[in-house]
Amino acid sequence: MYAGLDSAVYLRIYLIGLKIFVPIAFLAWAMLVPVNWTNSTLERAKLNNITSSNIDKLSISNIPVSSQRFWSHIVMAYAITFWTCYVLLKEYAKVASMRLQFLASDERRPDQFTVLARNVPPDADESVSELVEHFFLVNHPDHYLTHQVVYNANKLAKLVKKKKKTQNWLVYYKNKYSRNSSERPFMKTGFLGLWGNKVDAIDHHESEIEKLSKEIVAERERIADDPKSIMPAAFVSFKSRWGAAVCAQTQQSRNPTIWLTEWAPDPRDVYWPNLTIPYVSLSVRRPIIAVAFFFLTFFFMIPIALVQSLASLEGIEKAAPFLKPVVEKDFIKSLITGFLPGIALKLFLIFLPTILMIMSKFEGFISRSSLERRSASRYYLFNFVNVFLGSIITGSALEQLDSFIHQSANAIPKTIGVAIPIKATFFITYIMVDGWAGIAAEILMVKHLIIYHLKNFFLVKTERDREEAMDPGSLGFHIGEPRIQFYFLLGLVYATVTPVILPFIIIFFGLAYVVFRHQIINVYNQKYESAAAFWPDVHGRVITALVISQVLLMGLLSTKKAAQSTPFLLALPVLTIWFHRFCKGRYKPAFIIYPLQEAMMKDTLEHATEPHLNLKGYLQNAYIHPVFKASEDDEDGEEVLDENWENESVVVATKRQSRMNTPVPSKVSGGSSPSLPETVQELPQP
Amino acid sequence: MYAGLDSAVYLRIYLIGLKIFVPIAFLAWAMLVPVNWTNSTLERAKLNNITSSNIDKLSISNIPVSSQRFWSHIVMAYAITFWTCYVLLKEYAKVASMRLQFLASDERRPDQFTVLARNVPPDADESVSELVEHFFLVNHPDHYLTHQVVYNANKLAKLVKKKKKTQNWLVYYKNKYSRNSSERPFMKTGFLGLWGNKVDAIDHHESEIEKLSKEIVAERERIADDPKSIMPAAFVSFKSRWGAAVCAQTQQSRNPTIWLTEWAPDPRDVYWPNLTIPYVSLSVRRPIIAVAFFFLTFFFMIPIALVQSLASLEGIEKAAPFLKPVVEKDFIKSLITGFLPGIALKLFLIFLPTILMIMSKFEGFISRSSLERRSASRYYLFNFVNVFLGSIITGSALEQLDSFIHQSANAIPKTIGVAIPIKATFFITYIMVDGWAGIAAEILMVKHLIIYHLKNFFLVKTERDREEAMDPGSLGFHIGEPRIQFYFLLGLVYATVTPVILPFIIIFFGLAYVVFRHQIINVYNQKYESAAAFWPDVHGRVITALVISQVLLMGLLSTKKAAQSTPFLLALPVLTIWFHRFCKGRYKPAFIIYPLQEAMMKDTLEHATEPHLNLKGYLQNAYIHPVFKASEDDEDGEEVLDENWENESVVVATKRQSRMNTPVPSKVSGGSSPSLPETVQELPQP
Repeated sequence: MYAGLDSAVYLRIYLIGLKIFVPIAFLAWAMLVPVNWTNSTLERAKLNNITSSNIDKLSISNIPVSSQRFWSHIVMAYAITFWTCYVLLKEYAKVASMRLQFLASDERRPDQFTVLARNVPPDADESVSELVEHFFLVNHPDHYLTHQVVYNANKLAKLVKKKKKTQNWLVYYKNKYSRNSSERPFMKTGFLGLWGNKVDAIDHHESEIEKLSKEIVAERERIADDPKSIMPAAFVSFKSRWGAAVCAQTQQSRNPTIWLTEWAPDPRDVYWPNLTIPYVSLSVRRPIIAVAFFFLTFFFMIPIALVQSLASLEGIEKAAPFLKPVVEKDFIKSLITGFLPGIALKLFLIFLPTILMIMSKFEGFISRSSLERRSASRYYLFNFVNVFLGSIITGSALEQLDSFIHQSANAIPKTIGVAIPIKATFFITYIMVDGWAGIAAEILMVKHLIIYHLKNFFLVKTERDREEAMDPGSLGFHIGEPRIQFYFLLGLVYATVTPVILPFIIIFFGLAYVVFRHQIINVYNQKYESAAAFWPDVHGRVITALVISQVLLMGLLSTKKAAQSTPFLLALPVLTIWFHRFCKGRYKPAFIIYPLQEAMMKDTLEHATEPHLNLKGYLQNAYIHPVFKASEDDEDGEEVLDENWENESVVVATKRQSRMNTPVPSKVSGGSSPSLPETVQELPQP
Repeated sequence: MYAGLDSAVYLRIYLIGLKIFVPIAFLAWAMLVPVNWTNSTLERAKLNNITSSNIDKLSISNIPVSSQRFWSHIVMAYAITFWTCYVLLKEYAKVASMRLQFLASDERRPDQFTVLARNVPPDADESVSELVEHFFLVNHPDHYLTHQVVYNANKLAKLVKKKKKTQNWLVYYKNKYSRNSSERPFMKTGFLGLWGNKVDAIDHHESEIEKLSKEIVAERERIADDPKSIMPAAFVSFKSRWGAAVCAQTQQSRNPTIWLTEWAPDPRDVYWPNLTIPYVSLSVRRPIIAVAFFFLTFFFMIPIALVQSLASLEGIEKAAPFLKPVVEKDFIKSLITGFLPGIALKLFLIFLPTILMIMSKFEGFISRSSLERRSASRYYLFNFVNVFLGSIITGSALEQLDSFIHQSANAIPKTIGVAIPIKATFFITYIMVDGWAGIAAEILMVKHLIIYHLKNFFLVKTERDREEAMDPGSLGFHIGEPRIQFYFLLGLVYATVTPVILPFIIIFFGLAYVVFRHQIINVYNQKYESAAAFWPDVHGRVITALVISQVLLMGLLSTKKAAQSTPFLLALPVLTIWFHRFCKGRYKPAFIIYPLQEAMMKDTLEHATEPHLNLKGYLQNAYIHPVFKASEDDEDGEEVLDENWENESVVVATKRQSRMNTPVPSKVSGGSSPSLPETVQELPQP
């Protein structure tokens, strides 16, 4: 199992949770809990038959209106903000330096030398490949090395996948036949093997495979020959990291919408199907998805309510009257009324990350990591609107939206703020049910266990299937991270209001850290390495939670007639946003840009240690669609395109030496210029 | 008089006004005026003693509530939006191409080769100059040419200015003495020559000049010797435009807050005093100014009201009872009551652009053009809040702010929208008084005439003074442009509501175009050339006006019970903002970035036409503080620093060869790379 920087930094999110909330919890219990406890507002209210739990006695609700004690909450809000910002700052600095360290100390990687050029303009006289080569030879004459055009191999990938599946079936039937050689296995050719002509399964699959192999060969030839199968995009590689960094950060053409260059993702990270989306359509896809997400967030209850009404007792009896005698039975009746209405919502929530991932894919991001990041943002937003706001102000998101539009801007935090202390008990239960139980399920791998057994029962036919079913997959940043963030939100919002919630959150973060540490080291299998590119998002969401908590506290206090103290809170969101901007300016570039100084240092070092490196051979095939590489299972006709490429990349064994042995370039003295080792220009042979 | 691209593009703003509003006016008069006119709502209202002018009869007010006729206004709103966007798109494309053309066809300019590096980190062993040289030699080895550190010459500039002033006085007294040689002119040394010792004026000034000259020499030496007078910033010049473009667009260091590089402004455009502001303090100055501007916009009436209350009859009598007999006279009484209250406000409004400019200067922008752009944005905002909103909703901006905060978000456009048709007559008057009369004053140069005569009377002592007083100065983008934009706002807002206003606006734009065309060609004297860098701002403000007009129309219509038609307007702001984002992506980079392709083309051309160009000599002194250059008036001790620099730039002929002579790499076949001409590495001598 490979655990890279991504996993290490992912674990830090839990650690930050502990770092933020443990001191805050101590402070809150030392300062706020006594302040809240030593009042008798709620006891007096009890005389008027207003019920309240013991938890409420520890919360801000126990303080009488217009009390001077609210000052302690304001001081606490400041303490929380400063402490949270301090932890976040330290972490951002740490993660940024870890990332740069990782990029610097990491072995040579193709993406360090490569830039993805998109929207290559059409040209009547030249092919895309020629055009790319000429353009970069002219505009980056000293640095351009080679390039790799992007083929539209989506159809080919589909065919190869289908062939593999068929081969799998063939193995299954062969196994079946070898176990019981008395009769040849038969199958039906129709849908799911339920109807259609009965044929000999082994023969059928063998002929299918043959047909598919032919189709694959034909498709490969088509891709190689048809200029239309070449997308107007290319992975352009440079002789040095410096050259690639320059090209990725600059605008190439006078027209800023063509020859767009961006840093190429790690080859494992490339999401190939999206490279074939025409660049123009991206500007249409983004607003479409934005609107779709808006409707998903605010209107998702409508179809679910429809399903629920159908799934109710009356709904079933109406739709299928013949089931009436069955559903009227007591056991089934209670099952339907108790279980069915919830199941539509549960199913939706289980599939939500998948739905969001499909939306991100449609949007056209070209790396898996950016797909996950975008899905995570959306999932967080959805949770905020539907779980957080939805639980606090009971009612659907749609109703909230409607009431918010018709409220004045400063009434909204009041409406929400007032409801917060009331919901503390609910969220404590939520933390235990969703958080703690979720971790327990995680360590037992309940989900995977269920899925594995389901698959084993229904789908597994051969050994390879079993292996695939056993694979726990990757960590799922887009599912896990927004869920953690939700606890940051809860913790920050309730820290001043109902500090009782904090120990529950600390236990969650502690448990989760231990469990996920184990899981990441022993179980999960990360598919790619983005070098913690997700950190700015994590940071941003904690800041968002902090600002939300400040605004809601302001709303809450303004209803407590603590009018003279509320304005002091106004400075907090301003300071927090200023802090965020500062962090963004200071650290975010480390997650987007490869600084020239770094690139130059690494280049110089490499030239000193490996003067005869054949970089072209190394980079030639780095960015080939995986379907062209995966030739294990296909013996026939697989080499057609590969051979073409193989010819070019005569692989020369790299003479890598230990970097520790070469002395670091000595510090430059006086006004003299250091004589840099001359760049060895290796001109590859045609 | 020099009229560059800036002036030509500035004139286009008036032309756009005509292009947008002439067709809209025709359409509105053909479509909306008849629709509005053929109603009798206002006539019926007149029966109820509600007065209305004839202009109101042509406006939307004449249409009864919940009429189907509002559809025509919605269609009109769509037509206006599409037409305005179309004109803006064409203009953006045109201006962008004019700018690139200008940059491409323009003669060689130092800023094409130069980058401003700021926040050079402190180093214990090396001076700033050495550090800069080493850093860029290491990280841009093939492209770095030379650099020029930034000296803190603010004190020197002050001394030189003072010396000039004293010399001017000396000339004045000498003239006086030569006219009347019977008596030596005397003066008093105290404040404004009102008191103090009586001395011989010529002797006094001569000794003063001598003292200042010595101080200047001392200060020059201090600047040259004291390392503290060197700011951690430098103008770094490159061997090619390509190298400069790369450096300006990339991040240099791992730490994104040091070694900041940006495209250097035109040397004439550099605002030198701000180069000495430490970079760290900029992040504090920006929020300070933002807050200050907020208070200026919303609270400026408070001090003015104070002054007004003081300047009233009672105020004066209270403050200075001895003036009572004077102010009680009828003439003076009416003067005070009629004139004084307004004068404080008028004075404030006259000085507002200057105040805004001082704020921008404090914010630390380093080029005059960016100072003017920022001031223009603020002036527009101020006008929008205080003139536009302030006239529509009577009451101070502060009161508006208060009421807006307490209103729901969608009630605000209603409140404003309802008031719009009522104020049409007021704004027509405004256009005539402020717009038309302003142009008339412009052609007569009233303001300059007054200022000239005032200066002539009070300040002009010598011929040089008179020349300076005659200079009309530059166009004043930061004063003029926001004023024009206000007419765009009025035109777009009233086009659907009261189309009668449109001809007045068209006349304004037409007159203004003719007048300013004359003024720019014959009168004004542009001090720098920013190559129309202000265009994105102009475009953005017209878009803002368009969106405001759409939102207000929505607010207005929603009060007319035209509920079923209002939602159709919702798409308009969305579309407009999408259009703005599209334009930003497509054209804005042309105003910020120098594309590599352009740079390379220009480089190649230059190498071919001027193979033996001494670029280092050309760039060596391009970015020297003007105080070091202006040595006309000082004969003594002026050369101290200049000589130092002269010494450094011992011009070594670069061994640059024409690239045109080397054969262009032939069309590359297969996978081969062409053999590129090796870059001649010139390592500068220590």
